[in-house]
Amino acid sequence: MGSIFGHLFRVSTFGESHGGGVGVIVDGCPPRLELNTEDIQTELDRRRPGQSKITTPRKETDTCEILSGVFQGKTTGTPIAILVRNQDARSQDYEEIAQKYRPSHADATYDTKYGFRNFQGGGRSSARETIGRVAAGAIAQKILRQVAGTEIVAYVKRIHELEAIADPTTVTREQVERNIVRSPDPDFAERAIAAVERARDEKDSLGGVVECAVRNVLAGLGDPVFDKLEADLAKAMMSLPASKGFEIGSGFAGTLLKGSEHNDEFYTDESGRTRTRTNRSGGIQGGISNGEPIILRVAFKPTSTIGREQRTVTRTGEDTVLAARGRHDPCVLPRAVPMVEAMVALVLCDRLMHQTAQCQLLP
Amino acid sequence: MGSIFGHLFRVSTFGESHGGGVGVIVDGCPPRLELNTEDIQTELDRRRPGQSKITTPRKETDTCEILSGVFQGKTTGTPIAILVRNQDARSQDYEEIAQKYRPSHADATYDTKYGFRNFQGGGRSSARETIGRVAAGAIAQKILRQVAGTEIVAYVKRIHELEAIADPTTVTREQVERNIVRSPDPDFAERAIAAVERARDEKDSLGGVVECAVRNVLAGLGDPVFDKLEADLAKAMMSLPASKGFEIGSGFAGTLLKGSEHNDEFYTDESGRTRTRTNRSGGIQGGISNGEPIILRVAFKPTSTIGREQRTVTRTGEDTVLAARGRHDPCVLPRAVPMVEAMVALVLCDRLMHQTAQCQLLP
Amino acid sequence: MGSIFGHLFRVSTFGESHGGGVGVIVDGCPPRLELNTEDIQTELDRRRPGQSKITTPRKETDTCEILSGVFQGKTTGTPIAILVRNQDARSQDYEEIAQKYRPSHADATYDTKYGFRNFQGGGRSSARETIGRVAAGAIAQKILRQVAGTEIVAYVKRIHELEAIADPTTVTREQVERNIVRSPDPDFAERAIAAVERARDEKDSLGGVVECAVRNVLAGLGDPVFDKLEADLAKAMMSLPASKGFEIGSGFAGTLLKGSEHNDEFYTDESGRTRTRTNRSGGIQGGISNGEPIILRVAFKPTSTIGREQRTVTRTGEDTVLAARGRHDPCVLPRAVPMVEAMVALVLCDRLMHQTAQCQLLP
Amino acid sequence: MGSIFGHLFRVSTFGESHGGGVGVIVDGCPPRLELNTEDIQTELDRRRPGQSKITTPRKETDTCEILSGVFQGKTTGTPIAILVRNQDARSQDYEEIAQKYRPSHADATYDTKYGFRNFQGGGRSSARETIGRVAAGAIAQKILRQVAGTEIVAYVKRIHELEAIADPTTVTREQVERNIVRSPDPDFAERAIAAVERARDEKDSLGGVVECAVRNVLAGLGDPVFDKLEADLAKAMMSLPASKGFEIGSGFAGTLLKGSEHNDEFYTDESGRTRTRTNRSGGIQGGISNGEPIILRVAFKPTSTIGREQRTVTRTGEDTVLAARGRHDPCVLPRAVPMVEAMVALVLCDRLMHQTAQCQLLP
Repeated sequence: MGSIFGHLFRVSTFGESHGGGVGVIVDGCPPRLELNTEDIQTELDRRRPGQSKITTPRKETDTCEILSGVFQGKTTGTPIAILVRNQDARSQDYEEIAQKYRPSHADATYDTKYGFRNFQGGGRSSARETIGRVAAGAIAQKILRQVAGTEIVAYVKRIHELEAIADPTTVTREQVERNIVRSPDPDFAERAIAAVERARDEKDSLGGVVECAVRNVLAGLGDPVFDKLEADLAKAMMSLPASKGFEIGSGFAGTLLKGSEHNDEFYTDESGRTRTRTNRSGGIQGGISNGEPIILRVAFKPTSTIGREQRTVTRTGEDTVLAARGRHDPCVLPRAVPMVEAMVALVLCDRLMHQTAQCQLLP
Repeated sequence: MGSIFGHLFRVSTFGESHGGGVGVIVDGCPPRLELNTEDIQTELDRRRPGQSKITTPRKETDTCEILSGVFQGKTTGTPIAILVRNQDARSQDYEEIAQKYRPSHADATYDTKYGFRNFQGGGRSSARETIGRVAAGAIAQKILRQVAGTEIVAYVKRIHELEAIADPTTVTREQVERNIVRSPDPDFAERAIAAVERARDEKDSLGGVVECAVRNVLAGLGDPVFDKLEADLAKAMMSLPASKGFEIGSGFAGTLLKGSEHNDEFYTDESGRTRTRTNRSGGIQGGISNGEPIILRVAFKPTSTIGREQRTVTRTGEDTVLAARGRHDPCVLPRAVPMVEAMVALVLCDRLMHQTAQCQLLP
Repeated sequence: MGSIFGHLFRVSTFGESHGGGVGVIVDGCPPRLELNTEDIQTELDRRRPGQSKITTPRKETDTCEILSGVFQGKTTGTPIAILVRNQDARSQDYEEIAQKYRPSHADATYDTKYGFRNFQGGGRSSARETIGRVAAGAIAQKILRQVAGTEIVAYVKRIHELEAIADPTTVTREQVERNIVRSPDPDFAERAIAAVERARDEKDSLGGVVECAVRNVLAGLGDPVFDKLEADLAKAMMSLPASKGFEIGSGFAGTLLKGSEHNDEFYTDESGRTRTRTNRSGGIQGGISNGEPIILRVAFKPTSTIGREQRTVTRTGEDTVLAARGRHDPCVLPRAVPMVEAMVALVLCDRLMHQTAQCQLLP
Repeated sequence: MGSIFGHLFRVSTFGESHGGGVGVIVDGCPPRLELNTEDIQTELDRRRPGQSKITTPRKETDTCEILSGVFQGKTTGTPIAILVRNQDARSQDYEEIAQKYRPSHADATYDTKYGFRNFQGGGRSSARETIGRVAAGAIAQKILRQVAGTEIVAYVKRIHELEAIADPTTVTREQVERNIVRSPDPDFAERAIAAVERARDEKDSLGGVVECAVRNVLAGLGDPVFDKLEADLAKAMMSLPASKGFEIGSGFAGTLLKGSEHNDEFYTDESGRTRTRTNRSGGIQGGISNGEPIILRVAFKPTSTIGREQRTVTRTGEDTVLAARGRHDPCVLPRAVPMVEAMVALVLCDRLMHQTAQCQLLP
């Protein structure tokens, strides 16, 4: 269970680190959207391993094939299935892990839950499952751009103790893609790359924070009570591998302000639109987008699989030590950027469709 | 939309600040659970307004009636409907708010979304909607206690700049209920009460952080990829009114550690159970509970409705000022404690049922 | 479980024969729809017991109260909760049934399923649960009328061996309401009333067929593969108490025709619209409405609770006999008519919202 | 939308007649089930085209590949993706159909709904979509056999005017597979084959009825009100291509009996189990299985695509005639048998998991 996301723009993902491949079905995509493999491949290339010296050296081209749902270059409205074959799977790396649980990894909990486990490359807990998310997110982003010119730009805001300077109201994807860390702050990027390389050389890993800005989002998205927009975004972000925290707008820091300091006062802009003077709400009030930029942050822990020796236990309960082999990211942040964007897009597209269904039906 | 939560233990809430009442239907509750109104009233009493000098003075006994689903003191397995009538509704307080949007409140976004709005007491955006959550959560907590002795204890960890000392591995609900702030730290409680009273007198408001500990939770709850346990918890918490951030385990602070510092090493305890030496994971690894205490934190912003004059606009776009009348909490934290517990219980109960369905079917 | 219907126009019902009451929450209703209790009461009055000499003598006014979701005469877009209190509940009638299972009733299966059972009036298996359906259906019908002038007219087509003559393309609700059997054929009605009275006097019961015609339905409703419009309609109809069969268009009789006889040839009418010369498809092709009248039939078995003595067993397995007391319909058909209409409306409204969400989003 | 079925045993299908392939993801399959491609291929072979002289001559081996969710011969509990490549797709057959709507086919309604259509082989409306159902159904059947020894046996009960003699309480799959019509009555089979061949030679088509018996089904499956077992079965059956009617137990014929004739009296059998003397209920009472054989029937119309010339219109509204080319079944019944079994299995497996979740949680 747990591999289906969304209610109207419904995404079902599948696949493990090793085996026939990974992919996704999108059920509910609006018809008549122009779509080709290039639209999807572009995003998968930002996610794929081996893209730079600070990511895992696993070699995967992650070439996608659209199996269904597109005809003569347009979506038909029926399920879009996308398949990416696995290529560079090395089973021999996983013999030790078959017996020993990696600390803070999913090895032990999968075994407890299912009474059985695919130990090759982490099985379903491998970050390869995010291929399906990113592929589906590419489609969602295209819809959002077409409907409202919505731009979703995520970037690395912090790595370990280094913090980037970034303005969410202006940052562009081009700025973000200029360096392999994926941060619009070039000074930060340089120092962060050095820090990640150092951690990698020390067989250690680093965590950090991704920030995401969404501009030109329609007002009115999100639903009261349980399906508040920030609630859906939080679920989406906290479903990403290694995420430990989520903030919208002022977030935890906002709790240090008083109401009179925190509230976003309204004004009417020259075009007659209701705007807020500040944006501590992060673009969402009462669970519903207000048209201001949505700004959120996600905390990612340092990668749990590290080369250093750590104490652990075997499946049968004996104390042992493990220095993980295999190929792993010393820092997931650069590759998490397209994942964050994809998941934000899935939430917004689903809520846009809900809003259309409920609130644009009657005159 | 958006007023149904959960997939197996499904909760549908309804009701506004004013009108016939608020309540909930729980569909999917296991049969044969002993249940009476007292079980639910106890929790509602912790949530209700007017319970202390630092909460809103609105007078509501919030007396609940079980309309269906319970027969001869036991659940029948069919929908449990619970109704709480509204009593102390003062329509005259809302004339001004009918025209002027409260800054950072849901007034403007509801109007944008629906093209129409129930301005009395905030309508559906009133905190009264949480009555349904708390009532349903009382049932879920009873199930969890019965199945695994699960204890859910939330408490106020911070108010504005004041931070409580609390040990999530031992804190009890009795300790928490000893003061009106709902914090196990009595010194903090005293200072926090004073701070809230000061804010109230200044027609201002304060935010803070609620921490929640879950002990004796079964291992194996939560599902890979989208329905990770922390993802469902994040959605649940971020659906609460005024929440701005969510953390599990080490949270944002965990990003400042290296992998070798952050990982929770395993050992086998005397009973042969796999345990972790530390709990930076917060009881969840790979999206699945590992049997260690689940520890999470939720940031709540300062209440947006305040008595101070603020700049805003009218429904028709004119600039104006507003000093909100009506009766509001100067700080939502003390009343948020039972809401957090309720939502945590709803998530755990739903995932427990999923786990039973999928993983305990075959031998 | 099982008391929630629909995905966008989501209906949660609750309530048993005895106890606090029965009702429904509708989550997802479009905002700004004019709605008052009269809209709902009109339909409830067609469903209520005691309405004529051929229905159960149980006395219930079934007066409804709208608890939430309507403000100043219009829907707000948030959950609409509707409550009907139980009045004429006679517990003493059910002492015998508490121990003995009524043949072909839900008594035994509820007991098996839940290990416990509310025997008063059948508990949740009472036809009183359909109050929630009919109330929600009244709202759905109003939406459908407003969006497309859709008319849903059901009527009794057959009772036992008596068959009515009716033209689904022209039948009106006024014609149907002219007699207590609810059939547009007055001759049939007279004979059917006599037959039901005879069965009642013989402590027996009769079944029959309800036919339903939907005119002015938008083309394009329904979704390929699993959510075909006839599939959703079939589920809706077969969820009604006592239903045993469902047909769309030509139904079972259509299997006696060859393809060349069965196919509905197309033509273009004077307004340029694609029409079919015949309507054996019953208004649905490939799971999607084609704009022709939707025509379906539902078989209802004879009421299982009868006054005649029948062999049965007790809860503890002893063979015994039972002549049911209590007040029951000798024939459910007349009261099933508004239930069929309500369920058809719920399906169409939900699918209309899906169609709006998916296919009217992009230009 | 509409390509996901089930709530716990969730099946997402994809694929069109032409293009990369068709298949399915099963999310929620219990872990530790032994599963290999042979389990699935066996069922696909019963469904595939070209299997006999009375099915479409399209040549497809329908060879399946399990892409994920199975490791070392067992299910892992994570999504099982299954892919079948298309092989014998002939685009040239569809040039005419690109412009002309086939009467009673999905051509026109897809075009209306989506404003666009994949005309190759009917696109998503091709019977090839049922490959995903049959593959998933093979897994569900294996689970049901393992949990309760459940046997699902469907067979052709009628073709056009010819009716088979069959005893649902004893019929075996071996009997059914002895002839290419898939009927346990050999005399009927011979005559039916001749009838289908005659229709095929006359460029016409035939419909009929499939009956399905389920034995050794657990009592207690199905949920009150909307998710009654017969309601879910009806939806499942009416979602199959060409189905026009559904009956459970006595069905439409049951409406000709009085209550005293129709009711299934109870008795206690030698093992102490509550049984019914007759089975007009078809194994379901009050929406819940009672442990007696489930017996249902599905009406399938004659195939709409026929070689005879029929009147129709073009996409642009001109009147024209069409004599369909391409390769089509003169009668879908023989191939519908495994589809019916698959869909019945999906429903039962999903409801079994619901029952486990809700009613076996508490002692």
